[in-house]
Amino acid sequence: MIRVAVDAMGGDRGPEEIVAGALAAATDTVKPIVLGPKDLDTQGLELIEAPDVIAMEEKPTEAVRSKPRSSLVTACRAVAEGRADAVVSAGNTGAMLAASLLELRRIQGVRRPAIAVTIPAREGPSVLLDAGANADARPEDLVQFAHMGVVFAEQILAVARPRVRLLSIGEEPEKGNHLTLEAHALLSASDLPFAGNTEGRDLLTAGGDVVVTDGFTGNVALKLLEGTITSLLGALREEITATALGKLGGLLIRPGGRKLRERLDPDAYGGAYLLGLRGLAVIAHGNSSQRAITNAIRLAARGVENDVVGRLTENLGGSVLASGPSATPTPT
Amino acid sequence: MIRVAVDAMGGDRGPEEIVAGALAAATDTVKPIVLGPKDLDTQGLELIEAPDVIAMEEKPTEAVRSKPRSSLVTACRAVAEGRADAVVSAGNTGAMLAASLLELRRIQGVRRPAIAVTIPAREGPSVLLDAGANADARPEDLVQFAHMGVVFAEQILAVARPRVRLLSIGEEPEKGNHLTLEAHALLSASDLPFAGNTEGRDLLTAGGDVVVTDGFTGNVALKLLEGTITSLLGALREEITATALGKLGGLLIRPGGRKLRERLDPDAYGGAYLLGLRGLAVIAHGNSSQRAITNAIRLAARGVENDVVGRLTENLGGSVLASGPSATPTPT
Repeated sequence: MIRVAVDAMGGDRGPEEIVAGALAAATDTVKPIVLGPKDLDTQGLELIEAPDVIAMEEKPTEAVRSKPRSSLVTACRAVAEGRADAVVSAGNTGAMLAASLLELRRIQGVRRPAIAVTIPAREGPSVLLDAGANADARPEDLVQFAHMGVVFAEQILAVARPRVRLLSIGEEPEKGNHLTLEAHALLSASDLPFAGNTEGRDLLTAGGDVVVTDGFTGNVALKLLEGTITSLLGALREEITATALGKLGGLLIRPGGRKLRERLDPDAYGGAYLLGLRGLAVIAHGNSSQRAITNAIRLAARGVENDVVGRLTENLGGSVLASGPSATPTPT
Repeated sequence: MIRVAVDAMGGDRGPEEIVAGALAAATDTVKPIVLGPKDLDTQGLELIEAPDVIAMEEKPTEAVRSKPRSSLVTACRAVAEGRADAVVSAGNTGAMLAASLLELRRIQGVRRPAIAVTIPAREGPSVLLDAGANADARPEDLVQFAHMGVVFAEQILAVARPRVRLLSIGEEPEKGNHLTLEAHALLSASDLPFAGNTEGRDLLTAGGDVVVTDGFTGNVALKLLEGTITSLLGALREEITATALGKLGGLLIRPGGRKLRERLDPDAYGGAYLLGLRGLAVIAHGNSSQRAITNAIRLAARGVENDVVGRLTENLGGSVLASGPSATPTPT
């Protein structure tokens, strides 16, 4: 039985939505455990009591420090204490990061954890990381992200032979900024399946890639991708429905449009992994629907099933030795 | 009469395409002058002879140094020598950058030039800069980019009151990497119409913005934007035409789709400005069509007409004094 601690108080839509999502994720092998106040209606799911709530707009580090009994922090602690195998929260992302670092702690040798998001590319899913756990990164961090991404692609996305690509501003090795030029050299010298730079033109096309980047660029890229998809589909709908014939045409293309929309729907994956920790954490979108929460819990369960943390620990131990003293962990 | 030096040998489609585009741009007030070998068929346009060619894949600095008589370098020199008022090239972007720096030189006080691209947002055009002139930037560079962008938005895009926004990973001032945190402070303290961070979700929606960022992030963002639009419209077409009814629907929505496509067509602007130099330079896409070249020449002519270089010189002189000694130019 895989036990997933679910923060019922995180997210914009309220605990009913999250409990409903958790309930739908419950199976013979997956057991959601809900974290929230003692009077919460858990629909029969097990409750771990957590009286406090961290709001979306609170300052992460302060909130985590001052509210150890919040649902978010308690959910992370439940994993650390062995009461759950993974944690899912749609709450304050920064607080989730801070709480995971504090309660789950990093895998030995990992300098920075990374947020790994699935990119629903046309040829199959890819993974982009870091999508925003750390705004600044060092070249050796990107090598660690690549190791994490390979494990994620193999175990979670079931990609047989993932290729690692470095997000940059030209395919040639000499194109990039200081960070990517150094990272390119380190990745080339590593035993990773490194396939060179990618320009991001192909992000939504080529499947099976592990795209590594610093958390600033990754976060900008992810939001731009989401925003462009939303804006473009919205503009198209507007132009189409501006005429009667267009409206009719819109009805006829609906099945095709739906297929595309389903592929691009962020709810289909439900959440992003926080990788590099000694426990499994999934961060869901703030405005997660019931369905998104269900999928986020399934995503977390798949990570436990495939022992993602164990594999990362093995792989990252290796990478740290390989990339020399500059990659030794800084004291927390 | 505005004279625009056009590099006939740059770009992927060959000199015929470029000469045709130049010919179409010729009017009573705009005079394209073509740069190329002496046997080039200029269709009656004036020729400045340039026997050498810089290829797309050549290393920029070396190529510019070893081929002073190339069409690209000669075109830039024509502006420096007063034989033309602006230069347009669809050739090697890096070489264009190097040649402009060498021949046109920077405006006094400008540390780095920037590539300014027009973003065809839903509410009207915005400008993004730097789109890739420099992979690494300092906080004070971003303040200069903001000044350049305001002049561009006012003079070229005819935006009455442009707002400056900093591309970052959250709207709150404390969200960002080292670079944007410092740039945010400098922009806030400046007399620029600074409206805070933007996440890039709205890049294709909100109009009238001057979005500043370092050249690495800007280039990644631009290519991601272009790639996502292409990939999404392609996938949609594929899904729609998969069924007979969908095909019929596709025909009916064509007028609406065309309108959107026209707005998003990169050929509509034809090129990007290289700002911060003592002369006017426009970089066109490598695979520019005849129409793109015509529009790039018009874009260049508009810059001359509105004295963009003069206004930049005024504005940037001010900004350098305002932002203190850290922004003094480094020796070339």
